[in-house]
Amino acid sequence: MNQSTGSPPWAERRLRVMRSELCRVVEPGDLMGWAAVTALGVERTHQLALGGEEPSPGEQEAAARQAAEAGLRRTAGLRDALKRWRTRAAQADGARDLAALEDFGGGLLIPEDAAWPQQLNDLQAAAPLGLYFRCRGSGRSTHPQQVYAAAADRLPRPGRCIAVVGAREMSDYGGQVAAELAEQLAAREVAVLSGGAYGVDAAAHRAALAAGTSGFASSVAVLAGGADRFYPAGNEPLLRSIADHGLLLTEMAPGSAPTRHRFLQRNRLIAALADAVVVVEARWRSGALSTAHHALELGRPVGAVPGSVYSASSAGCHRLLQQTPAQLVTDAAEVMQMVAAAALEQDPLPLPESSAQRHRSDPDPLEGLGEAERRIYDALPARRLTTAGRLSQVAGLAMPQVLSGLSRLQRRGLAAETNGQWGRARPPAP
Amino acid sequence: MNQSTGSPPWAERRLRVMRSELCRVVEPGDLMGWAAVTALGVERTHQLALGGEEPSPGEQEAAARQAAEAGLRRTAGLRDALKRWRTRAAQADGARDLAALEDFGGGLLIPEDAAWPQQLNDLQAAAPLGLYFRCRGSGRSTHPQQVYAAAADRLPRPGRCIAVVGAREMSDYGGQVAAELAEQLAAREVAVLSGGAYGVDAAAHRAALAAGTSGFASSVAVLAGGADRFYPAGNEPLLRSIADHGLLLTEMAPGSAPTRHRFLQRNRLIAALADAVVVVEARWRSGALSTAHHALELGRPVGAVPGSVYSASSAGCHRLLQQTPAQLVTDAAEVMQMVAAAALEQDPLPLPESSAQRHRSDPDPLEGLGEAERRIYDALPARRLTTAGRLSQVAGLAMPQVLSGLSRLQRRGLAAETNGQWGRARPPAP
Repeated sequence: MNQSTGSPPWAERRLRVMRSELCRVVEPGDLMGWAAVTALGVERTHQLALGGEEPSPGEQEAAARQAAEAGLRRTAGLRDALKRWRTRAAQADGARDLAALEDFGGGLLIPEDAAWPQQLNDLQAAAPLGLYFRCRGSGRSTHPQQVYAAAADRLPRPGRCIAVVGAREMSDYGGQVAAELAEQLAAREVAVLSGGAYGVDAAAHRAALAAGTSGFASSVAVLAGGADRFYPAGNEPLLRSIADHGLLLTEMAPGSAPTRHRFLQRNRLIAALADAVVVVEARWRSGALSTAHHALELGRPVGAVPGSVYSASSAGCHRLLQQTPAQLVTDAAEVMQMVAAAALEQDPLPLPESSAQRHRSDPDPLEGLGEAERRIYDALPARRLTTAGRLSQVAGLAMPQVLSGLSRLQRRGLAAETNGQWGRARPPAP
Repeated sequence: MNQSTGSPPWAERRLRVMRSELCRVVEPGDLMGWAAVTALGVERTHQLALGGEEPSPGEQEAAARQAAEAGLRRTAGLRDALKRWRTRAAQADGARDLAALEDFGGGLLIPEDAAWPQQLNDLQAAAPLGLYFRCRGSGRSTHPQQVYAAAADRLPRPGRCIAVVGAREMSDYGGQVAAELAEQLAAREVAVLSGGAYGVDAAAHRAALAAGTSGFASSVAVLAGGADRFYPAGNEPLLRSIADHGLLLTEMAPGSAPTRHRFLQRNRLIAALADAVVVVEARWRSGALSTAHHALELGRPVGAVPGSVYSASSAGCHRLLQQTPAQLVTDAAEVMQMVAAAALEQDPLPLPESSAQRHRSDPDPLEGLGEAERRIYDALPARRLTTAGRLSQVAGLAMPQVLSGLSRLQRRGLAAETNGQWGRARPPAP
């Protein structure tokens, strides 16, 4: 099913089975699972967790060091973790689980797969040990290989996946915004990622499915329980449809029930898989805000849709806009602009060394500029674009000063304007 | 009427008459009026504009220098300005205008008055030459002195005046928000400042008047025409009521018609007189946005009320929130928080020199801190408070890092938290 590891098929299958059993026994959020696998490898961790072997003092130290390096200060040691994991060992049967999944059109993606979504590595120690998927809602699949190929094809691609999340108790307004956003995104061949809940999640998936073109997985749902469980029950037809035309993902082994803890852990997967998270509606305290905060932690841009100041369903969005770097968005075009601006920021083009050296000995390009122009130049991002309003805030200068300063900097070849946004001009050619 | 200039009453009256005549002939926005008065004085400018005298080459140069110093590059010279001003000389009769105004309960405030709102000086070259007022809607006043005292009493006080502005074509939602904001502000004895238009202006004034306590002028309107003109006509009862219980202000001489140009110029007075401007509803292009931009230029905080992404009446507010440093506000408490934060920022407490010197030789308080804590400390404002979200943005660190870093800085006495906002801790006492 996977040609990328270069291992013979039986070795690859064995790895998949072991990872499936580790997924079964290690609860999401138990970061010692990642530390042990990273320090000791999948096979050895599996022997310890499921084979009844005891870790050597050196192995305990290696796992603890890995945990400490990942900043997991409050994690107890490997022996304590093994005690937790072994309580579930009797339930673990990776071969059975994989066979059952593959039977109904699913499987388990593992980090060793070429198709593994590299975005998940941004989670570092919180990265999942594996990712179950389902890409058939019903019926049997005769060729597991085709199912894995379909899943790989339907996985969110970097730059083409937006999470649309929000309250279960959405207003008519929230439903309309979620549907229009999802529809506009899907029409641009951008996948809509969300949970499987009633409310905003369901409205976004429905609209994305309706707007999706053939051959493009417009709707991807990340579940908090097993891929064989359609939860909530009322959304079963929708979730089957997502599996048929899009993709269901979960880090929970088949049969696992969604719990409150797993919903919260699930939110980090949504944040990591998406290029941006858009909160359509959220109450003052809302699970959607946890997804937004995960995204901010990961450096993903977050958009929030404004609404009536009288709507409790918008209070969480307004709170995000006031208290975090979340940005106000009103439609899909603004969401994609936000993603493009963040991509420029996060992926700076390295300056060739020769050029960097040349510039080091150049005369000061700011010579002769006034205090205000210098402050504006300092505030201008080198590798992305920003608005004059933002420059005004960063430089602490009034807007007319910023605008006249920018036009002076532009005349001197120090600032460049693109579609009303400003950045530093590229250094002139030698 | 005014004891502050220390001049005999006739000299003070003469000054008021001269300024009134200058207000009549110099159109708002003609910044050469300010340059001439500043360079040559009121009396000499009056002789030139209304007495038919010709400026000496030295006077022309002084006025031009004053204009250039104020950054007015594109202003033509004094002789051209005099040509403009003299076209209206025949209409100027300051004694008649003042008598008429005082007769119906108004007058002219001038910069030489103790009661002159010092906030207007922030306008620099765009400051008005005088400010007509009306504090009686109808009936005659027997004592002009009382009228001036009443006006002085009703003028917006720094820290206690918020402009509530917005679209004429407001939605029901905009009307409700404007009324609740104004009511909540007036209930805190904060004056509501606005124009006199239909829509948001009128809704804000009505609610402020209804919520005002006796002896407190809860409603102040700045007009684009003369104080004897109630415009628009349908708002005459409201404007009379504002005059009776609050204050009408304008820089236009009596009888002057409001023009498009004067509406735009009037907006700068609203921005300068208020501690903050709140835009309740505005279309993509709206006069309310010009008031907001004037406020941002003056360094006044600007709040914008969010609304439905489908409402054209909220598009301008969303635009402000996306493109300028305007802040999202949902009620009066948030508006007052915004004003308090901005006041701390603009009026830093000077550190006593001895203390500053002592700290210069202190050991590095950041010794032993990690990179993240140092970046958070650098991002912490010294003299005001900010949110963790903003710190995350400024320091470029994820929220959990910011929160844990803040708590470490707090334990070391380097950061202090007040009502969920953060600043640097005051240096410890010696």
